[in-house]
Order: sequence, then C-alpha cells, then structure tokens
Amino acid sequence: MKKIAIIMGSDSDWPVVKGAHTYLTDMNIPHVVRVISAHRTPETAAEFAKTARENGFAAIIAAAGKAAHLAGALAANTTLPVIGIPVKSTALDGMDALLATVQMPSGIPVATVAIDGAKNAAILAAQILSVTDEEIANKLNQARADMKDAASKKDQEYQKEYTFTGEEN
Amino acid sequence: MKKIAIIMGSDSDWPVVKGAHTYLTDMNIPHVVRVISAHRTPETAAEFAKTARENGFAAIIAAAGKAAHLAGALAANTTLPVIGIPVKSTALDGMDALLATVQMPSGIPVATVAIDGAKNAAILAAQILSVTDEEIANKLNQARADMKDAASKKDQEYQKEYTFTGEEN
Amino acid sequence: MKKIAIIMGSDSDWPVVKGAHTYLTDMNIPHVVRVISAHRTPETAAEFAKTARENGFAAIIAAAGKAAHLAGALAANTTLPVIGIPVKSTALDGMDALLATVQMPSGIPVATVAIDGAKNAAILAAQILSVTDEEIANKLNQARADMKDAASKKDQEYQKEYTFTGEEN
Amino acid sequence: MKKIAIIMGSDSDWPVVKGAHTYLTDMNIPHVVRVISAHRTPETAAEFAKTARENGFAAIIAAAGKAAHLAGALAANTTLPVIGIPVKSTALDGMDALLATVQMPSGIPVATVAIDGAKNAAILAAQILSVTDEEIANKLNQARADMKDAASKKDQEYQKEYTFTGEEN
Amino acid sequence: MKKIAIIMGSDSDWPVVKGAHTYLTDMNIPHVVRVISAHRTPETAAEFAKTARENGFAAIIAAAGKAAHLAGALAANTTLPVIGIPVKSTALDGMDALLATVQMPSGIPVATVAIDGAKNAAILAAQILSVTDEEIANKLNQARADMKDAASKKDQEYQKEYTFTGEEN
Amino acid sequence: MKKIAIIMGSDSDWPVVKGAHTYLTDMNIPHVVRVISAHRTPETAAEFAKTARENGFAAIIAAAGKAAHLAGALAANTTLPVIGIPVKSTALDGMDALLATVQMPSGIPVATVAIDGAKNAAILAAQILSVTDEEIANKLNQARADMKDAASKKDQEYQKEYTFTGEEN
Amino acid sequence: MKKIAIIMGSDSDWPVVKGAHTYLTDMNIPHVVRVISAHRTPETAAEFAKTARENGFAAIIAAAGKAAHLAGALAANTTLPVIGIPVKSTALDGMDALLATVQMPSGIPVATVAIDGAKNAAILAAQILSVTDEEIANKLNQARADMKDAASKKDQEYQKEYTFTGEEN
Amino acid sequence: MKKIAIIMGSDSDWPVVKGAHTYLTDMNIPHVVRVISAHRTPETAAEFAKTARENGFAAIIAAAGKAAHLAGALAANTTLPVIGIPVKSTALDGMDALLATVQMPSGIPVATVAIDGAKNAAILAAQILSVTDEEIANKLNQARADMKDAASKKDQEYQKEYTFTGEEN
Repeated sequence: MKKIAIIMGSDSDWPVVKGAHTYLTDMNIPHVVRVISAHRTPETAAEFAKTARENGFAAIIAAAGKAAHLAGALAANTTLPVIGIPVKSTALDGMDALLATVQMPSGIPVATVAIDGAKNAAILAAQILSVTDEEIANKLNQARADMKDAASKKDQEYQKEYTFTGEEN
Repeated sequence: MKKIAIIMGSDSDWPVVKGAHTYLTDMNIPHVVRVISAHRTPETAAEFAKTARENGFAAIIAAAGKAAHLAGALAANTTLPVIGIPVKSTALDGMDALLATVQMPSGIPVATVAIDGAKNAAILAAQILSVTDEEIANKLNQARADMKDAASKKDQEYQKEYTFTGEEN
Repeated sequence: MKKIAIIMGSDSDWPVVKGAHTYLTDMNIPHVVRVISAHRTPETAAEFAKTARENGFAAIIAAAGKAAHLAGALAANTTLPVIGIPVKSTALDGMDALLATVQMPSGIPVATVAIDGAKNAAILAAQILSVTDEEIANKLNQARADMKDAASKKDQEYQKEYTFTGEEN
Repeated sequence: MKKIAIIMGSDSDWPVVKGAHTYLTDMNIPHVVRVISAHRTPETAAEFAKTARENGFAAIIAAAGKAAHLAGALAANTTLPVIGIPVKSTALDGMDALLATVQMPSGIPVATVAIDGAKNAAILAAQILSVTDEEIANKLNQARADMKDAASKKDQEYQKEYTFTGEEN
Repeated sequence: MKKIAIIMGSDSDWPVVKGAHTYLTDMNIPHVVRVISAHRTPETAAEFAKTARENGFAAIIAAAGKAAHLAGALAANTTLPVIGIPVKSTALDGMDALLATVQMPSGIPVATVAIDGAKNAAILAAQILSVTDEEIANKLNQARADMKDAASKKDQEYQKEYTFTGEEN
Repeated sequence: MKKIAIIMGSDSDWPVVKGAHTYLTDMNIPHVVRVISAHRTPETAAEFAKTARENGFAAIIAAAGKAAHLAGALAANTTLPVIGIPVKSTALDGMDALLATVQMPSGIPVATVAIDGAKNAAILAAQILSVTDEEIANKLNQARADMKDAASKKDQEYQKEYTFTGEEN
Repeated sequence: MKKIAIIMGSDSDWPVVKGAHTYLTDMNIPHVVRVISAHRTPETAAEFAKTARENGFAAIIAAAGKAAHLAGALAANTTLPVIGIPVKSTALDGMDALLATVQMPSGIPVATVAIDGAKNAAILAAQILSVTDEEIANKLNQARADMKDAASKKDQEYQKEYTFTGEEN
Repeated sequence: MKKIAIIMGSDSDWPVVKGAHTYLTDMNIPHVVRVISAHRTPETAAEFAKTARENGFAAIIAAAGKAAHLAGALAANTTLPVIGIPVKSTALDGMDALLATVQMPSGIPVATVAIDGAKNAAILAAQILSVTDEEIANKLNQARADMKDAASKKDQEYQKEYTFTGEEN
C-alpha cells in the first residue's frame, strides 16, 4: 500500500498533529511522521516533496501555524495531493494559519481542513486511498456507521432523559 | 477511469465553477456537472453522495456561497473525498462561505480550496486520481513544468525590461 | 399545545443547550431534546424535519458549532420556523458558527440568535407560540416585567451606593 | 389573519426591503410597511412595538444597517417575534449590522436572517403564521416544492450540456 | 458644576465600569451611576436621556456589551454628548460591542472609546467639562504631566538597567 | 464662541471631511480646516494641539485613514476633546482606520465616530459646545426635531403606498 | 552600491509593484525586477535568495497576494532583510496576504509594509541602504522635507479657503 | 558599530520586548532599551527619532499594543528603518495593534513583524546591520544553520519514533 506523510512545521505542533498519527495507525495505514519547516529546513521540504511520489507516498499531510507556508511549499514541489492543517497559535485564533494555507494561487491547490483538524486530515488521506483500495473504503464506511450508531445512542439517552410533556396545572 | 462530479449549489455559481469543467475537459477526465442544493434539493444531494462510489466517482467537487453547506452535506453521505469551493457572494467577501466549508467537525472532512478556486479544485481532483493513474500524474507534472516555463519567461521579460543599474551623476 | 424540538449537533453542546431546556420547562412548554448531527446522522435530521409539522412541533431549535450546518439542514426539510444557535468552539470565537448559521440562501431562512444564545432561542420559540396562545403571551409579558423590575432594583442599588455629589474643597 | 409589520430604519433601505413586501403580497399575507428609526423616531418605535400584539400583528420584520439597533429596540418593547434584517452599507460589508442585530443579550431575542436577506425574513414571518394556519403551511410547502422543481430542472440542463465522458486518444 | 451620568446596561459590567466612577471621584466631578438597559428598561433609558440636560448633566457615559445599543438608545433621546464604552463579553472579543456602538447613523453620534475603556470615557467626560471649566482643565493638564513624569521615570530605569554597549571579544 | 478645528491627514480625505465643514457652517459655528499629517507634518500636529486650548478651540476633529494616528497624535498633545473620524481607504474596508483611532491606551481618549462619519463628528463637536451654550443646544434640539419630522413623513408615505390588507380569494 | 531586488509572485502584480521600481529609479538605486513564484518557480526563488548576498544585493522586496508565501520563502533562504508587500486580490480585501506575509515564525522575519504598499517597500529598502550610505540618507531627508512642504502648502490652501469665523445674526 | 534602539510604549510590554534585548545581547550588538510613549511622552519620541541617526543608531525597534502609534510616530521623525512589533493586548487578539502598525501611509514605512514578534524584530535589525557588516552576516548565517540542525534533529527523532509501516493482518 502507498504511504502517507505527516509533516509538521515544528515539534510544538505535535499535540495537534498526533491525532493524525493515531488515526492512521488505527486504520493500519503506513505513514511517516516528519518535522520539516518551510522556513528552517526549506531544502528538506522541497526534496521530500519532489521525491514523494516515487518514494511511494500517496498524499502529504502538512500542519503549520501563523504564516503557515508548509503545505504550500510542499505542494509547489509535488503533484500529489497535499492536505493542509492550519494550527492555531497564540494570536488571531488560527485565522492567520487558515488563510495562509487555504488561499493558494491558481495551479497549486492545498486541500485544507479545519483549524487544528488533524484527525480530519488523516481521514481525508484515507479517503484518497479509498478511491482505489476497497479495504480502506470498507473501513471508512464501517467507521462512519459506528459514528452514526454512537450519535444515535446519545440521541436516545437525551430523548429519554429530557423529553418534557408539560405539567398539568 | 473513475469520474469526477462537479456540483454547484446554484446555477448562479457557474461563472466560477466552469473553470473546473474546463480544466477536467482539457485533462480528458470524465465528469458530470450538476446543480444540486443542500437546501433546495437535499434528497438529491444525499442520494447522489450515497451512491457516488458505486456509480464510479472518485471525488466530488462542491461549490457554494454564503452559509455554504453543500460540500459538508455531500461529505456526510459518502466516504469519497469531497472538495469544497467557497464561492464569494455580495456580502462578507467570501469569508462566510470559507468558514462554512472548511470548519467541518471531526469525522467528516471537506478538502477546501481558496475562495472561488474552481480550477484548483479540479486540479486537486486530478491529483487524487493521479495517486494510482500514471498518465494523469504525467499530465500534472507536464502542466506544472509548463507553468514553470511560462513564469520563467515572464521573469526574463521583466528582468530585461526593468533592470536598472544606476546612472552616473 | 404544540411542541418545541431542541436539537444539538453533539452532546458536547449540552452545557450551552441546556439553557433552552430549562427555560421551556419553566414555561411549561412541552419539548423534546435530541442529539442529531447534520453530518453524522443526516438521515435522522432529514426525517425528523420532514415529519416535524405532522408530529405536532411548532418550531425547531438547532444548536451547532464550527461549520454549523444543522439548523440549515433541518430548515431544508421543513417549512416550520427553525431557530439556530451558533455554538462557540475552540477556534475563531464563534464567528464560524455564526456565519454558517445565519447566511442562509434565499428561500430557506434560519432564525439565528446570538452565539451560545440558547435561552434566547427558547424565548423566541415561546414567542412564536405566543402568536396564538394567550397564556404564553401573558407569561412572556410577565417575565419581561419581572426582568424590568430586577433591573430597576439593581439600578436603585447602584444609584444609592455610588452617586457622588462632589466634595467641598 | 394576523398581520406582519415590515419596518425599515431609513427609506434608503427600501431597495433591500421591498423583497419582503413583494413576498408577503404574493403570499396574500396582510402587512404594513413603515419607516421607523430607533434613533430618529425612537418613540414611534417603542409605541409601535408596545401595541403591536393588540393591534393584530403576529411578527415584526426590522431592517437596518450599520449599528443596527432597530430590531433590538422593537424587541425590547414587545414579546412578539421580531425578525432582524442586517442591511449592508458602504463600509465593513454588513458585518457591523449583522453583529448589532444578532448579538442580543439574554432575555430579548432577535430572529436574525442573512445580510440583506429581506425575502427570507418574510418567509420566516410566513412560517411563524403557518404554525397555526394550515393554508399558509400549504403555500409554503408548495413554494418549497416549486423551488425544488426549478432546481431539478436546472440540474438536468447542466447535466445534459456539460457531462463529459472523456475522449478516445 | 454640571454632572456626568455613568450608565451600564447590566450590573455585570461593573468591574469594567467602576474605573469611570473611580476617576470622576478622584477628579471631584459629581456623577451618578445607573443600571439602565436599552432592552430591559427602555423607558427608563429614554426618560433619563430626554431629561438629562434639564437635570444638570453635561454628558452621559454608557457601557454595554454584545449588540451594545445602550449608548445609541440614549443618544437618540438627547443632544448632549453620549460617550460609549464597548464591553468585551465571552464571544467575538469585543468586536460586536465596538461595531454596535461606533457605527451610528448620520445625525446621532456616539463618542466611542476603546473596548473596556472606562477610564478613558471618564477622562473624555472631564475634557468636555474642561472646555469651559478652567479648574478641570488644570487638573487634566496636571494629570497629563504626572503621567508623562511616570513614563519618563520608567524610561530612565530601563535605560539604566538594559543599555548594552557590546563586549570586547 | 470657542472654535472647532477640523483636521485631515491628507487633502484626499476632503470628500469625506467636507461634511463636517458644511455642518458647522450651517450651524454658524466658527472653525478652521487644516491639512496636518501625524506622519508628514508631526511638528505642526504637536504644535497645533499644544496651543489649541489657549487659541480658543473647544474641540478638535481629526480624520485619517489606514494606520490612522492623527487623532491620537493630537490627543497626546492636548487635554481638549479630540474627535476621530476613521476614513475608509482602498483595502480592509475602513477596519484599519477604525481600530487605529478607537483603541487608544488608558489616559488619552479619542472620541471616535463611525467610519467616514464626518457629519456626526461635527454634530458631536456642536454637542460639546451645547453643554454650556444654550443657543447651540436649541439648534441641536431643533435639528433633531426636524430629522424626526422628515422620518415621520417618509413613514406616512410608505404606510400609505405599501399597506397591504390581503385580497379576497 | 549594493542592489535591491524587486520580486513579484506574478506579473499580474505589476500595477502595484511598479511603484517600487519607479521610486528606486528616481532615487538612482540599482535594482532588478523579477517574476519569481514561491509556488510555480520555487527553485528559482530558493536559488535567488541563497546567492543574493554574494551577488551584491542589500535587500529583497517581495510582493504577493492571497496565501502570500513569496517573502517568507525568500527569507527562509537568506539572512538579508526581506521586505514583504501583501497584494490585495479579489476576495478578503488583502487580509489573507497581510497575515500570510507578516505572521512569520520566530527566526525568519519578514519586514512587512501596508497592503499594496509598494512605494513604502522601496523607501524601506532605501532606508536600509541609508544606514551606511550618507548620500541616500541625504536624499531621504530631502524627500521627507519636500513631502512636509507639500503638506504644509495644502494646509495653507485649505485654511485660507475654508476658515469660517461665524456670521453675525 | 552602530547601535539599535529598542523602544516600548509601556513597561507592561517588557515580557514581550525582552526577547529583542536578549537576542541583541547574545549577538553582541550594542543597543539601548527605552520606555517612550507616542501618547504620554510624544516629545521624547519625536526628539529621540530626530536625533537617532546622528546619535549612531542604525535602526529603531518599536513595540506597542492597541492603537499602536509608536512605530509610526518614530518613523515620522526619522528616515532610519523603523521596525514595528504589534503587541497583543486583552481584546481583539492583537489585530488592532497589527493594523495600526502596518497600514502606514505612503512615504513613511514601518517594517512590521508578527504580533509579539520581538525576537524577529531584533533579527531584522541584525539583518539590516549585516548588509555592511560581515561579522554579523556570518553570525546570522551560523544561527540559521544551527536552527536548521536543531530542526533536522527533531525530524530524525520523530521519524524514528513514529514511522508506522503497517501491521500484517
């Protein structure tokens, strides 16, 4: 099976990013975890992206905060799908990272997920694999069904607990 | 080859969305163009998404403005990758559509591109196909190389025209 | 009397949403509390909304955060009034949920209240019932009068405590 | 039948607000159109709201721009449902009117619709009437069905025109 | 001497507003402190504002959060200067109160100060009095001079402590 | 009578600022119009503000766009009331000028009016004069009454033209 | 004299960027104009930045819109000062480019100027040269003095034209 | 060697600003630390800036929050490079200081770094010195190389710890 790359701009992003690692491990999808910065190790970023397809990667997940260039810098050097996770930092509540990740110019898309949405980035990577991998498709469908069941169960609990039919005066 | 779906919430989105259609046609990637609204034809949206995988689709592109629910409503009914295009409308400069598209809850990702980024949505769809389709990968790489050449050519023109070496007093 | 539905996208919204339940109970207005997600249980959402009128509901209160589609997804399947509560989550201070709830397209309104404004959503539901229910109208007017009295009492306390007439030099 | 009030803060809001008038006329719902300003004619605003219920109104639609206080000023003087339309003006793209309308304090809700969403405000008013008026409920359901049909027709046109099955090389 | 009114929409604003009370007391400027809400006690608000000039007030300070209508509601009923303090609340970081206070329509100004800027509101009130009251003008000038001295002292401390002239290698 | 100063950062602000000049002229309030920039002529700004009180000014109106420092720079050099008009420029829709004008630090208030609110700035200046000038107070009250009458007249026109009582089937 | 580099991400930025070229030419400061994209020609960007110091450049001006990575991508590959110009594009009014340019992570600064502030970027480059180049320092001081004179002249015109001393009744 | 000035608007900014002091000390670059306020000590600000060049300064770093005028006020009085640090305060998450610092009018640039980006401001100052100071250039290059090595080391740790190759079923 092709691999997924999880790349974060700084190891300080790990508390957010580990959600992607956990998900892919649970899904038994091979992946690497890297700390590569668009600004501190730009050559590594370029090199990694340029060789990602031939090295057996199917998609690259990139997480960064503030002027979050990482996803875009990787996308500039590969035609594989690049998934961007905007990471919230101390100011501006994540809006800076969101805009710096999603507003890519024509020709170089980044598939952006929600601020701090590491698990969703990993699910999106699995969905990309699922296009031609029936086993992953089945797992995704099963997980969706489980999620639905869990929500339905919560629904029943709340209905039972809080339904109010009015009191006679 | 698997197909791509291009879905817009309203035919008023077509001036933006047609960029995706043009790109996929140029890339010779089969696709359908649909007008399906999360709010006006929600059953069609759910039905389309639920059967998309079995109907041979690899990914769904969804474009909508304002409280842009379309991509999310489709994503809720499929585990295929769903690509969201936030469409700018008359107020708030596209910020409403961007946030309504990208800020999806855990479990249901939408791969969001830039506001009005229809071409990038189509490129992302092609990139997803390219994971297992070498011909598309080659075309994407070729297009990237062409884009690079065009930029380099512009670079040479401007260098030649505007380099200023200073004047002797 | 017709019933009100209180629907939240996730049980994690309950700390906000319970304010609506408390208010309607205090007003002796029959209601149900449900956990239905536009994304995890979209069929339940559609089914609930489609049958809400015939099942004796007068209005639906829907609370959700981030890309808050719940109110819109319900509104797409009923012509009853749908009241949306944007729920603040960890990033963007509730602005995402507000825009995703209020900026509905023409044809499908959502009556949006303030971020985390669960009590106001319940009051609005009571106001809708009050259009043809004199008893509720009277209760609403009484509550408004009580609120006014409480504010006036505070006013007198502060006037008494903090009025400053200046000191002789 | 109970009446609806359409109130705008300034006659300069009429190009937006007339959409509400047109809709209610088409639905054969009696209504008045007023120019009442929370700032220029505050007594008229208070007086109108205080007597609205006894004067046979079911709901009040209020449209205003900038520091849009009109809906809130009316809501402070009635327990009828008040529907707020934030009107976009020359600066800030409608964000000021949206926040000034929707962020009401606990106890005094305003049912806010999208920026410049006059038609949706009128639909919401009709939905409120429909809770106990079967004829209006039927009309609303019919209009929804018509809207669905129109969207489906557009869908078929675009499918037919733009479906692309790929070309043989 | 004419008086100043300090009005807050809710006693929960007192932690912010007391800064205005403290300042005016220190300046020996007579003032009242009131809890009057544009939404809960609108008649009191209107009545207070209408009679403020004849009751010997020179200016009104109004503090409110969220859809902060208080300053505007007072300004609509008086031609005295009304000073608005936008109060930050739990969502949107004070932006809602700022826009609802400052973006007043033509004809009815509100003199808006910074979010939670209660002391500055009181200083502004004193400045208004100072136009024709030499004693207050002198006090304001003295306070400004003291503020300058305190800043200069800090400046000297930091200069002394942190000046770095470089080290010889 | 004391004078008002109208100061703009650039003569390009004149289309906005002239509204203040027109208003003060109509009110027969003496005033000067100046072009003084916090950045291009900072010494003139400081000098003007420092001597404004002794030169017979009662208040200073300052209009500037972008990083609008003018009002603050004047306020730093006088204890007279300074009224700030944030001017909308080509980017960011006036939000930059608004925040740069209103968010003044403790000790140095700027009385900020709406974006491009030149007339309101002039009215506020007149209101400040009115605290001790009965004639201006009377003129302000008269203008307010006229404004109310004009609004009431519009109200009657719209009521007459657009009241809809419903049609018999 | 050392040279300045003016780099734009796309030749569509030229209408903005040419202001920098004009200024540097007028100041007789040697410079090159390049079209280099962080996304389309990332290797050229890296190569240019890495060799900029040895090639005689003193500073690099970089202009880009949307997810504006250009300045950051250059800064990652040089320790020369990099000046960023955020360019306004069709959505979000330049806020995306501003945040993507200015919010750089610790270690890699970008000296950011105003949205579309090309002339200011060029002035900043000249200021950097002026630290050790007395002739440029003199020119900058002269230009500043000229700017001051022009503003003062405007000031006199407006004072003369619009001073209003009040009319006798 | 020429000196750098670090100026903060208030000593409450020191927790942010000391990062600049620490960096310059570590780099052995002479500098002063000052507390000068554009609003409380405007004359000191003007005087400092006017004489900065002749007093041997190469650049001025200015840190301020809210309506952050300090950098602009200094820039108005010198043609040396002025570097602005927007400081985050209690409301608006630093957006006010960012816009008040960066959106300078044409003619008077401020080189703005990220919100609370004191270390980057100091690095930028060092970069400016490095244009003609080879020793500083070498130190900057060395620091960059060290930063790269530290990032690479982290990269190796994470790769080793978290690479997941998939499990056999």
